[in-house]
Amino acid sequence: MASSLNSLEGEIETQNALFNELRLSGSDPAGLEEVKKKLGELKKSLGQAKAKAAADGATASGSKEVAGKKKERILLKTAKGTRDYGPAEMFCREYVERIVKDCFSTYGGSCLDTPVFERKEILAGKYGEDAKLIFDLMDQGGEQLSLRYDHTVPLARYLAMMGGTNTQSKLWQVGKVYRRDNPVMSKGRMREFSQADFDISGTWDPMIPDAEIISLICSILSKIDVGEFTIKINHRKILDGIFEVCGVPADKIRTISSAVDKLDKLPWADVKTEMTEEKGLEPAVADKIGEYVKHKGGPELLAKLLADAALSANPSAKQGLDDMGLLFTYLSAYNVIDKISFDMSLARGLDYYTGIIYEAIVDASAPPSFQANPSVGSSTTPSPALPKKKVTKKVKNEDGEEEEEVDESQVGVGSIAAGGRYDGLVGMFSAAAAGDSKKSATSKGSIPCIGISIGLDRIFALVWPKWVEKGKRSKETMVYVMAAGDGLLVERMKLVKELRDANIKVDFLAKKKPKLPVQFAAGERDEVPFAIILGENEIKEGYVMVKQQKWEMVDGKKVKVLAEGDEKGEKVDREQLVEWLRATQIWKDWEDGKL
Amino acid sequence: MASSLNSLEGEIETQNALFNELRLSGSDPAGLEEVKKKLGELKKSLGQAKAKAAADGATASGSKEVAGKKKERILLKTAKGTRDYGPAEMFCREYVERIVKDCFSTYGGSCLDTPVFERKEILAGKYGEDAKLIFDLMDQGGEQLSLRYDHTVPLARYLAMMGGTNTQSKLWQVGKVYRRDNPVMSKGRMREFSQADFDISGTWDPMIPDAEIISLICSILSKIDVGEFTIKINHRKILDGIFEVCGVPADKIRTISSAVDKLDKLPWADVKTEMTEEKGLEPAVADKIGEYVKHKGGPELLAKLLADAALSANPSAKQGLDDMGLLFTYLSAYNVIDKISFDMSLARGLDYYTGIIYEAIVDASAPPSFQANPSVGSSTTPSPALPKKKVTKKVKNEDGEEEEEVDESQVGVGSIAAGGRYDGLVGMFSAAAAGDSKKSATSKGSIPCIGISIGLDRIFALVWPKWVEKGKRSKETMVYVMAAGDGLLVERMKLVKELRDANIKVDFLAKKKPKLPVQFAAGERDEVPFAIILGENEIKEGYVMVKQQKWEMVDGKKVKVLAEGDEKGEKVDREQLVEWLRATQIWKDWEDGKL
Repeated sequence: MASSLNSLEGEIETQNALFNELRLSGSDPAGLEEVKKKLGELKKSLGQAKAKAAADGATASGSKEVAGKKKERILLKTAKGTRDYGPAEMFCREYVERIVKDCFSTYGGSCLDTPVFERKEILAGKYGEDAKLIFDLMDQGGEQLSLRYDHTVPLARYLAMMGGTNTQSKLWQVGKVYRRDNPVMSKGRMREFSQADFDISGTWDPMIPDAEIISLICSILSKIDVGEFTIKINHRKILDGIFEVCGVPADKIRTISSAVDKLDKLPWADVKTEMTEEKGLEPAVADKIGEYVKHKGGPELLAKLLADAALSANPSAKQGLDDMGLLFTYLSAYNVIDKISFDMSLARGLDYYTGIIYEAIVDASAPPSFQANPSVGSSTTPSPALPKKKVTKKVKNEDGEEEEEVDESQVGVGSIAAGGRYDGLVGMFSAAAAGDSKKSATSKGSIPCIGISIGLDRIFALVWPKWVEKGKRSKETMVYVMAAGDGLLVERMKLVKELRDANIKVDFLAKKKPKLPVQFAAGERDEVPFAIILGENEIKEGYVMVKQQKWEMVDGKKVKVLAEGDEKGEKVDREQLVEWLRATQIWKDWEDGKL
Repeated sequence: MASSLNSLEGEIETQNALFNELRLSGSDPAGLEEVKKKLGELKKSLGQAKAKAAADGATASGSKEVAGKKKERILLKTAKGTRDYGPAEMFCREYVERIVKDCFSTYGGSCLDTPVFERKEILAGKYGEDAKLIFDLMDQGGEQLSLRYDHTVPLARYLAMMGGTNTQSKLWQVGKVYRRDNPVMSKGRMREFSQADFDISGTWDPMIPDAEIISLICSILSKIDVGEFTIKINHRKILDGIFEVCGVPADKIRTISSAVDKLDKLPWADVKTEMTEEKGLEPAVADKIGEYVKHKGGPELLAKLLADAALSANPSAKQGLDDMGLLFTYLSAYNVIDKISFDMSLARGLDYYTGIIYEAIVDASAPPSFQANPSVGSSTTPSPALPKKKVTKKVKNEDGEEEEEVDESQVGVGSIAAGGRYDGLVGMFSAAAAGDSKKSATSKGSIPCIGISIGLDRIFALVWPKWVEKGKRSKETMVYVMAAGDGLLVERMKLVKELRDANIKVDFLAKKKPKLPVQFAAGERDEVPFAIILGENEIKEGYVMVKQQKWEMVDGKKVKVLAEGDEKGEKVDREQLVEWLRATQIWKDWEDGKL
């Protein structure tokens, strides 16, 4: 097909040249006409061939594999690890997002928006072993692109691009990020998922931005109904100090840290095996580490560690412990100290953290075996050593990919927010852009940063069941406009438009002459608090009938409750209608979020 | 590297088997110890080799092309056709989005969210020639995926998946869509761009949803300060009728319609040439079409067309004209008829439209040569035939791709919203999923739909310059907390937290002992209306000093204006502070959107 198009185009070119030559040389009109006609026919054929090619192409691209065969069925589904969110769920998600964004601006943040894909080299070398989870775009000629894996790396790229013009900022980003992850779990672990990030950049006095971030996540989780929560905190410098004090060789510190990070999923015995057998650590060294990382608690744990002469003598550990001391002072000022668990087993996977690291967990997000809220108070309960059941097994999915099947009864939603201080990442970009291979955190162009990522899908997974249980409305329509008798369509439209112009959320049945009960049923489906009924008389005399209706959960079902004495509705002057509606108790309760 | 890892793993397996065999057979402890030691060493080597491989991999993936050479510089930039939006711009964009979403729910809409990518087969065959602009994801094992090209096709896929459970809906979607388009223009034409869609699905009485959509876009554009606008409307059935009446062969109707669609960019002479020379239409037929498509106007144009005996006798045209009559009646009820231009040259590119089609244009969005607002009133001005300058030329870009360079002085932002009725698209999905090759709009599973897509970037391009000119704030921080003397950091933190807990947007300088003028300067950068100053005495006695400050544009610069008599600030009881702030005129003006 393509070659026949090409040959047609070639012929047209030849004829065109011939025609122009003849015309310019003043050839005889008849001969000229002959060539022109031939040219016209060729162009016509080309047009038809192109149209056919386009039509064929459209069909073929739908079912390339079965070229020439009958059209294949298409699978009506979303891509693996992604899903649609319908109206009711989105109403709840928008509510959660609004609280998060409001808190972000309450803490002085401004919004940043970066593209959903980045040049591949921007993401390269940032995610260690997890780089295999990056979604790449097809090379269609041009740049190598990848979907963003988180908001942190695009933010660091943005700050490096801004250079010296924007070295101090509080920025938030809300949007989707992408990981080709297995397994796909129902509790909010997807290949496409929403994260809300808040980051503070710039050189400030020690631990003040750090305390701001911790206070922020406590404010957000308190406002959203997620239940009791705890912020686990640790410090990379303390961990590094512990590893040094215990005798871990310098070149093994990062890999041993990765092993410690698994303590929330594996018993200590397994982690020790990984340290000694896989990573070649002396068992005695591993045992020393084990003694340290089982500690968790509050300020009194800090005192205990400061009293540890070996640890205090280590410069890295000492700086980390001093930081933690200052942080605890500030967190008391913010009145969130009771939410904190200084957890020495927290290590976080990412390489780029340089200071404090933290994770927010809620009771509801822990697997069933995890019941106690790790509250403040020193504890040496060896919870990491609790035996845990294996929760996954390998299976083949419909596409023939191997993936892990998860026993969901054994899995919680995990941490619902996490982050840390990363003072070197922006400098890495600045240095790489300048062709400077030193990734120095102190080099020019470096900007210290600290941030947190909130897993919106995980929070939604916690909030949604309560939302359903309470029978929350799934849309905000306040008024349903109806008419008796002949339908009065144009009159309904006029009133609807009047109310909408006054910013009142209104709907009506898009039928010319609907029966009144059908209109009531439609309004009830939307659970509207106000039904307005128009009639010939009402229109002539300038009033409307308004019925107020509340919706209550009775035995798990939504039931309409008419306002007392309001069975027949109330006559309201049409001129006063907007003010009247806004003055009702139902309206005020709705505005205050009580309904 | 991979093979050496494999051979190590092989050796470990062998030694492991040997060890277990010896252990189980009760072999002598010395021999067992020997094997165990060997095993430990092997595992250690494997760990090191793996770590090295991971580190190499991270480097290599960053600069594959220069393997072995010095690390290449990375380009600090966003992908072609994409951009970051920083805090000030995002503040404006969020404002625009909020108005749009509010209008959507005022019209009874609910939110839908679909994934950013779809299975490729879902998008196939929907976009005709433009299918080449679809961004594909790399095949990393698994599904063939593409970034969404618009919100309409994912919506239709969603409705088809819902099947019979959701046949009547008003759904909106706000999000980014993707097209590998050239040229990239500064006025809002990007490869990643934001669209806000509103769609009404289901079988309703004729033209009521159609009028709802037109009224909706008028409400939105009136609320956003985009200047004067016009909604151009036409009807596919009228166009088809015209083509039939003029003598266009049935198999050429879609391709001739595509040619007509170019009339907003090309003069009639060029379009006629395309019809006759490329698409083989008789010149006389093209001339007849030319007579029809130059008409635009209002209801009186409709009357004129109804009086055209040939047109009225055509069943398709007659149905289209009747629809338009009904639509005009409803648009009068909605009080938006003066925004409408019945424009017979409007054809819209997409194949799937089956009824009315429309485009919103603003005066500011038209190229400089287009000055008049095509207002209501029949007009036969042959504006399509106006000669226009060629505005593009082909150039090679930095990646060696050929792209069109645009003379931006000749280009407006184009239409800022567009859409139409598409009654067959959902049925196409249902039929394809059922393996039914008939794409019948009347088949089971078909759901008639009508919708509109609003180009948020184009609207932002119109609103942003005015926003800058007015010197609008770029964040919402209301209060800046400061302290004189010793810094009083912990006291500042406590007050900040108190106010934030009362949902007041507050910030402070993250320094231990900042000088007072530095704190004032920081608050002024954020243009906060309230500066609160703490001192030792104030804390002891339970009050704070509050300075109210307004910000006004004077000669294009933001200037601070202190409230009258407020140069020294006001003493406010700390217990009453929140109520006091909320009761000030500045606070109320800000809440009312006046500041």
